[in-house]
Amino acid sequence: MKLKALILNCTLKKSPAVSNTQALIDKAIGLFAEQDVQAESIRVVDHYIAFGVSSQKLDDRDEWPAILQKILAADVLVIGSPIWFGVRSSVAQLVMERLEGTYDEADPETWQFPLYGKVAGVVITGNEDGAHDVASNTLFNLSHLGCTVPPNVDSYIEAGGGKHLYTNKTVRFMVHNLTYMARLLKENPIPTNLRRLVEQAQEESR
Amino acid sequence: MKLKALILNCTLKKSPAVSNTQALIDKAIGLFAEQDVQAESIRVVDHYIAFGVSSQKLDDRDEWPAILQKILAADVLVIGSPIWFGVRSSVAQLVMERLEGTYDEADPETWQFPLYGKVAGVVITGNEDGAHDVASNTLFNLSHLGCTVPPNVDSYIEAGGGKHLYTNKTVRFMVHNLTYMARLLKENPIPTNLRRLVEQAQEESR
Amino acid sequence: MKLKALILNCTLKKSPAVSNTQALIDKAIGLFAEQDVQAESIRVVDHYIAFGVSSQKLDDRDEWPAILQKILAADVLVIGSPIWFGVRSSVAQLVMERLEGTYDEADPETWQFPLYGKVAGVVITGNEDGAHDVASNTLFNLSHLGCTVPPNVDSYIEAGGGKHLYTNKTVRFMVHNLTYMARLLKENPIPTNLRRLVEQAQEESR
Amino acid sequence: MKLKALILNCTLKKSPAVSNTQALIDKAIGLFAEQDVQAESIRVVDHYIAFGVSSQKLDDRDEWPAILQKILAADVLVIGSPIWFGVRSSVAQLVMERLEGTYDEADPETWQFPLYGKVAGVVITGNEDGAHDVASNTLFNLSHLGCTVPPNVDSYIEAGGGKHLYTNKTVRFMVHNLTYMARLLKENPIPTNLRRLVEQAQEESR
Repeated sequence: MKLKALILNCTLKKSPAVSNTQALIDKAIGLFAEQDVQAESIRVVDHYIAFGVSSQKLDDRDEWPAILQKILAADVLVIGSPIWFGVRSSVAQLVMERLEGTYDEADPETWQFPLYGKVAGVVITGNEDGAHDVASNTLFNLSHLGCTVPPNVDSYIEAGGGKHLYTNKTVRFMVHNLTYMARLLKENPIPTNLRRLVEQAQEESR
Repeated sequence: MKLKALILNCTLKKSPAVSNTQALIDKAIGLFAEQDVQAESIRVVDHYIAFGVSSQKLDDRDEWPAILQKILAADVLVIGSPIWFGVRSSVAQLVMERLEGTYDEADPETWQFPLYGKVAGVVITGNEDGAHDVASNTLFNLSHLGCTVPPNVDSYIEAGGGKHLYTNKTVRFMVHNLTYMARLLKENPIPTNLRRLVEQAQEESR
Repeated sequence: MKLKALILNCTLKKSPAVSNTQALIDKAIGLFAEQDVQAESIRVVDHYIAFGVSSQKLDDRDEWPAILQKILAADVLVIGSPIWFGVRSSVAQLVMERLEGTYDEADPETWQFPLYGKVAGVVITGNEDGAHDVASNTLFNLSHLGCTVPPNVDSYIEAGGGKHLYTNKTVRFMVHNLTYMARLLKENPIPTNLRRLVEQAQEESR
Repeated sequence: MKLKALILNCTLKKSPAVSNTQALIDKAIGLFAEQDVQAESIRVVDHYIAFGVSSQKLDDRDEWPAILQKILAADVLVIGSPIWFGVRSSVAQLVMERLEGTYDEADPETWQFPLYGKVAGVVITGNEDGAHDVASNTLFNLSHLGCTVPPNVDSYIEAGGGKHLYTNKTVRFMVHNLTYMARLLKENPIPTNLRRLVEQAQEESR
């Protein structure tokens, strides 16, 4: 079964404006293809997504549920974000807020969240300092939601186009480690029964 | 072969002062034992560690090399830190700084860093707000050094002793997911040849 | 001349949904009135603001320019934000991104940015850990834009309604210190000629 | 009365090793002198400071109380820190932890903390990404302790020596704004009676 990767481009610029983040994402998609992973990207700002923390359709125009379906169908999830004022973009934050909704949709048996078993990475566009903060917050959030974070899965491109070698290196590390780990977890799903562990904790806290 | 876990308690308080962080660490050690993982902890502040960013013995009294040996021998690495001023403790930061030295000791063949193949978690003591920042920075640093971060591996204890159920829950999630992933990676080491990927990137950047 | 304060409520919830952040903001408005400061709040999510990093009207419906006018007319600027996933809300980030546009509108003589001379504070609603990160990032961003940050200007309310005394204390510290500093700066505007300093730096770097 | 500035160099390298941070600090000291401010720096790692969160002498060799005396005698406090792993240095964190002790030494009448009335800035040495995080955390911590943060008081030097113009510009902005604000606050001390505000909050929370 072919692995699937989804890369969410959280640039502030709507198509067809040039997105530096997209340039790096396209490179990642090509490298995923070499690893026999079917990758696609969504430019989130081209869609209307309502503000909120739920997986449900929040108003008539809200396109989140369709994007969430794509996320749930993927084995690899990559968030691509520029840095603005040292922090991930408002579009990336909006995506993370909507993903909070998945906490409420745990598996009835194991209580694992829907993102359990997926692997996560980030693509950062460096308009300014803050890559570390964007990457660490975003990967930590995704690990809370159930994703596994392999080593060296933060790739980076400078807005101005500098550090070319660094970009080419980090995107390769990212694609290779995400692919390996996704395949490993697909064949060996995390068996943790969170429900039973919660019950044990409740017993102990009584 | 039995898995080994090492938990570094980065409290500011020397023995025999009571450390809230240690209480949670001891619980984790017990839970690791149930999973057939041999866990031990080191109270870092009881040792003298020189300031610096190298793996070498930096002065006559520097005990870092001995601690590093224990880290390298472990399959699971957990950093335990209180929060001070919203940031991980100076002792935890000192440990991370010394771990920068391992970047210089990559495998001559694959260029993988020495911490590749290990899994990482954190134990946070909440004197105040900042658990998110301490966990995300520390796990991200460890993933940069080569560790894999499974889902839900940040456990948390309130300094005052509140949120008992939350603590008991998070420490169980952490121990179970770290153990599963450590076993999986021990049997299926990450094969990524970073050296070859760097060479490809150099070629492309020429 | 009466001082003016503007508080931007960056909750994700549109009116008329109950906003915890608004409850604390209303308290702050009352306390500002006692200090003879005319305060008002805007619930940003009730308005449509386009994504971007410019002060200009970015599309037909974009309401940012009107909000920016209110910001520029105020002496005190307070950002109110809930915490989601340890980070300020997407609405707060969107506001900060649009404020990047003011960098391009420096005074032609002194090169001071339009927010020079204002004072800044934050109101945080604690759904979860992360108040420290939201406050520090937001206040630092505002100081970069030209605002002065007096001591103890981060007020905090727990989503669940706990820590009542802490909230009542921090909101008072915030209002009193913001008011004192705003009055002081209004009477004693920061005279720094950034343009001349840049020219000196250019000379030295030649 | 001549203003005093104290700059704490929190490099990890003991004298006489070359410290990039010190180079920028020396430039700041010269610029302060031009503004008639008497500035000096302390290279903290040359002194032994015990781990802890108290202002008291914690063991026989602990030199913190002498450093704290210098801090208390200064009108301007600047923390100079390199970035390691995206976070301020362990030496800088150690300094901040010890400053927590000043919370316990509030003025008996007004309950203002000992750092009230001072102004704060930072000098960051960029070995890597993370300047934003180091500056925002450190300035926010200092504002909590009582310091006022004027606009544009984070100066930055690249470890490798690049961005020369940016460094020369930011250090000038920092010195001029710190000096102006320190003089203003010395002549117009913040009058806020925190004690009375706490009593009002207690009354309201009853």
